Amino acid sequence: MAAEDIVNLAQRRSVFFPSAEIYSSAPAGFFDFGSVGNAMRRKIVDFWRKELVEKEGFEEICGSQVLPKEVFVASGHLQNFADPIVLCNKCQSVFRVDSLVSLAVGEPVAESLSPKEFDELIKKHRVKCTKCKSMDFAPVQKFNMMMEVSVGATGKDVAYLRPETCQSIFLDFARIFKTARKSLPLGIAQAGNSFRNEIAPRNALIREREIGQMEIEVFFNPKKINEIVGFEDVKDYKLNLFLLKSKRIEKISCADAVSKKIVSGKLIAYHLARTQQFFEKLGIPIEKIRFRELEKEARAFYAKETWDFEVETSLGWVELVACNYRSDVDLTAHQKQSRTDLSIKEEGDAQPFVPHVFELSAGLDRALFVLLDLAFRKEKRGPEERVFLDLHPRIAPFFVSVFPLVKKDGLFESGKEIFEELNNGVFEVFFDEKGSIGKRYARVDEIGVPFAITIDYDTMKDSTVTIRERNSLAQKRVKVSELFDVLLKMFLGKMSFEKI
Amino acid sequence: MAAEDIVNLAQRRSVFFPSAEIYSSAPAGFFDFGSVGNAMRRKIVDFWRKELVEKEGFEEICGSQVLPKEVFVASGHLQNFADPIVLCNKCQSVFRVDSLVSLAVGEPVAESLSPKEFDELIKKHRVKCTKCKSMDFAPVQKFNMMMEVSVGATGKDVAYLRPETCQSIFLDFARIFKTARKSLPLGIAQAGNSFRNEIAPRNALIREREIGQMEIEVFFNPKKINEIVGFEDVKDYKLNLFLLKSKRIEKISCADAVSKKIVSGKLIAYHLARTQQFFEKLGIPIEKIRFRELEKEARAFYAKETWDFEVETSLGWVELVACNYRSDVDLTAHQKQSRTDLSIKEEGDAQPFVPHVFELSAGLDRALFVLLDLAFRKEKRGPEERVFLDLHPRIAPFFVSVFPLVKKDGLFESGKEIFEELNNGVFEVFFDEKGSIGKRYARVDEIGVPFAITIDYDTMKDSTVTIRERNSLAQKRVKVSELFDVLLKMFLGKMSFEKI
Repeated sequence: MAAEDIVNLAQRRSVFFPSAEIYSSAPAGFFDFGSVGNAMRRKIVDFWRKELVEKEGFEEICGSQVLPKEVFVASGHLQNFADPIVLCNKCQSVFRVDSLVSLAVGEPVAESLSPKEFDELIKKHRVKCTKCKSMDFAPVQKFNMMMEVSVGATGKDVAYLRPETCQSIFLDFARIFKTARKSLPLGIAQAGNSFRNEIAPRNALIREREIGQMEIEVFFNPKKINEIVGFEDVKDYKLNLFLLKSKRIEKISCADAVSKKIVSGKLIAYHLARTQQFFEKLGIPIEKIRFRELEKEARAFYAKETWDFEVETSLGWVELVACNYRSDVDLTAHQKQSRTDLSIKEEGDAQPFVPHVFELSAGLDRALFVLLDLAFRKEKRGPEERVFLDLHPRIAPFFVSVFPLVKKDGLFESGKEIFEELNNGVFEVFFDEKGSIGKRYARVDEIGVPFAITIDYDTMKDSTVTIRERNSLAQKRVKVSELFDVLLKMFLGKMSFEKI
Repeated sequence: MAAEDIVNLAQRRSVFFPSAEIYSSAPAGFFDFGSVGNAMRRKIVDFWRKELVEKEGFEEICGSQVLPKEVFVASGHLQNFADPIVLCNKCQSVFRVDSLVSLAVGEPVAESLSPKEFDELIKKHRVKCTKCKSMDFAPVQKFNMMMEVSVGATGKDVAYLRPETCQSIFLDFARIFKTARKSLPLGIAQAGNSFRNEIAPRNALIREREIGQMEIEVFFNPKKINEIVGFEDVKDYKLNLFLLKSKRIEKISCADAVSKKIVSGKLIAYHLARTQQFFEKLGIPIEKIRFRELEKEARAFYAKETWDFEVETSLGWVELVACNYRSDVDLTAHQKQSRTDLSIKEEGDAQPFVPHVFELSAGLDRALFVLLDLAFRKEKRGPEERVFLDLHPRIAPFFVSVFPLVKKDGLFESGKEIFEELNNGVFEVFFDEKGSIGKRYARVDEIGVPFAITIDYDTMKDSTVTIRERNSLAQKRVKVSELFDVLLKMFLGKMSFEKI
C-alpha cells in the first residue's frame, strides 16, 4: 500500500518524522520535516503564492499564532470548536464518542448530538471501551480543541493558539484594505501553522495537531458576486463537481455552474476553477480530483455554501481545500465584539457595507502527503527494483543534482565549479560526490529530483556534461557554457528535455 | 528619530503592526506582518538559507513548535529560563525586579541575584512602584518565561511552546546525521518562531513575545575544531571584535583571532566571518558591526564562549545573532533524559563521541527592524521631501515595479503583458496602474523597490521602456525584448545600472 511506502520513505530519507521522537512522552500528531520535506513544503507554498496570491493581485500577511480570547469569543470557536468525548473510568482512555458509538451501532452517528443523547446511546447499545472492554464511562463532555496559552505574568490574559490561520485575516482586513489601495474583490492570504488538540491524531500528516495551512479569504461586495474580471478566462473550463443530488462527479463548465445556480455566483466558480488548475499544475491527474458539495448539516456553522476539494489517494478521497462561502459572519462578529467599525466604502458608492467572504482553506502538510502518495513509483528493472518519485519540477526538493563521476583528476573541482555556477538563486541545486554514481542516481530518484548532471572524463576534454532525466532515464550531452540557459528554459517551462 | 520613523512607516504601509489591534485586550509583544513586511521577512530567510545553509552544505529542518515537558527538563529551561519579577500589592503592576531596583540604586543590578537578595535590596533602597508610588510589594518570584500548552484530553501531557528553535535541532541531530550521509562539521538550521513570555515587551520588533528566528547549530568533533576546509578563504578577512579587555572594536583577521587564542579555534572564527559577511551583503556598513565578547556572568549557562553580533542603530547597539559555543551540553542532557544514545562515529574512527556545538542564533524580526532602520532616508528635493528605503535588492519586497503611464490607449494592456513576462518566478514584480506616476514612484520608493519600469506612449511606437533607479533617480531606455535579460543580469549581480 502506497501510504505505508510513503511513511517508510519519509523515515528513511527524513522527509518527515514524529517530533521529539527520542522521548517516549512526546505527544502524537506533531511532526518535524527534514531538509527534503522542508524544501517541498516551501515549494508548495511558493507556487501557491505565485499562482493564487500574486497573479490575482492579492495581499499576503503573516499573523501571530497566539491570539487573545476575545477573538475566539467573536469567531464562535470558544463555543463551537469542540468534539464530544468520553472517558473510560476503568482504563482512563479517552475517545471521540461519536466514533465509539458508531462502532457499536454499526452505522455513522452524527457528532452534533448533545452529550445527553450520547450518554443515552452508550447505555442503550451497551457500548464497551475498545481498550479494556469496561462499560463504565464518565459522562460525555464537549472538549474544546483549542490549545490555551497563558500570556503575561498575572495569568489574567487568556489567549489561544489559533485553530485556523484565517482569524488574523479578518482582524487585519480593514487595515490592509485601506493601506493596499486596492478595490474589491480583494483576497488576503496567509500561510502558516494552526493548532488543534485532536483526540486521535492519525494517518501521519493527514490529521495532525500542528497543521500547516495556506488560506485565502476573498472579500467582495455580495451585490457584485457576478462582476469578476477574470471570469472570461475560465468560463469554458470544466470543474469536477461531485453533486449532492447525483452523488457522482460531473464535469461542468464554470459558465454552466453559474447559470444553473450550482454555485452562488461567478466569483465562486472562478476560484474553484483556479484551485483545480493549481493542483493540476502540481501534477495531480484530473480524474483524481473532485469538489464535493457538502450538505447543510456537514458544513461549518458559518458556511452558506461549501465545496470540499478532494483528491483520490491510497487512503481514499482526502480533503485538501475547504471552500467556504462564509458570508459576512466573521467581520460582523468581530465588529460587534471589538466595537470597531469594519465596514468599507467602495469607490463611487456612498453606502458603507461589510464585505462577504469566500474562503479557500488549504492544508499544506496534507498536500505534501498527497503529492508524495501520487508520485510514488516502483519499477522493475531486470532483477532490481527502482523506486522514484514522479514529482513535478515545481515541487521537487531540488531541480537538478550535480555529480562528479569520481573525486580525483579535477572532476570534483570541475563539479564544484559547475555547482556554484548553477546555484545562483534561480533554482535549487544538489551536489553529491560520495559513493557510486548508481547509488547517487538512486538517492535523487527517491526524492524526486528531475534532472542529474554528471561530470566525467569527457568533461575535462570537451567541456560537456551529461544530463539525465529521472523518469525516462534518457541521457544527453550538453556544453557546460550552455548548461544554465538550457536548465533555465526547462525550469521556466519554455523547453522540454526532448528539445535539448 | 529613525526608530519612530520606522514604526510610523510600518503603520502607514502595513509593514508590521500589533496583532489583533482591533481588540483592546490583545496582549503586547505580538505582531502581524503585511505583504511588504512578510515579503522582506521571507527574503531575509531566503538569503540566509542560500548563504549560510546551502553554500555550507548544511541541512535545514522545520520542527514542531510545541514540545513535551521532558525536552525542557533536559535543556534546563524549566529550571533556568526565568526572570525575577515583583508584584505591586497596591496597583497589581508586575515588574522585572532587576530593572526596578536598578532605577532606585542608580546603577545596573544583576538579574542573577536570588529572590531573597532582591527583597532585601527593595527594603534597603526603599524602592517605589513606578506606577502608583506604593512601597508595598509581594515577595520577589522567579517567573518562567515559557508558555505552557496542554495537549490531549486528559491534561496530563504538559508541553511548552518552544522558547528557542534549536531544541528540535538537538533532538533530530542523530537522525539527520545518519540519513544525510554527511560528515562533521555538519550544520543543522531552522527558521521559525519561538515564544517567550516577556514581562515587558518593548521597542516593537526588538523585544517580542512571538519571535522570528533563524538558527544554525554546527556540530563538530572538538578534536578537529581547527580542521575547517573553508578557513583558507577567510583567514585574512577581518572581524570587528569588541574585546572585553580593550572595550573597543579591534579589526582582527580570522588567522590572528585563532593564533592569539581570542577564539577557541578555526571553526569559530570561520563562522563569525561568514556571519559578518552575510550582514555586509545585506547592506549593513562594516563600521556599524561588532562582535561583542561576553563575560562569563553574562553568558547563557551552557556557553563556553559567546560573541554577540551587534549592529549600531538609532536605538543603540542591537544584538542580532548570539554566537554560542555550547560544547556538548545539549546533546549530553537529551541523551541522559531520553535514554537514547546520541553519540556518533566518524568515518575511520573507532571511538563514538558526542559532538560539540557552535550556535549561530539570529533574530529574524530584529534583523528586519534593523535593516529598515539603517535604510531609512529623508531627502530634500526643492520644496518637497522624499522618503525612501535604501534597501539592498536582496531584501527589497519587490525587485522591480511596472507602471503604465496611463490606463488608456493600450498602455495598460502593454504594461500587463510586460508584467506577466517579467513575473515568471525568478524575481518579484509589482504592478500598479492607479494614481499619478509621481505618487506611484513615491510609494515604491517608500518600500524600497530598487527599479521601476514605465510604459509610455513611446513604448507603443518603438517597444522601449524607461527603467528608473530608486536611489539616483536616473532613468534609461531599454528595449522590451531585452528587458528580462537586463534585469536578470542586475538581479544576479552580473551588471550594474550604469552599464545598461
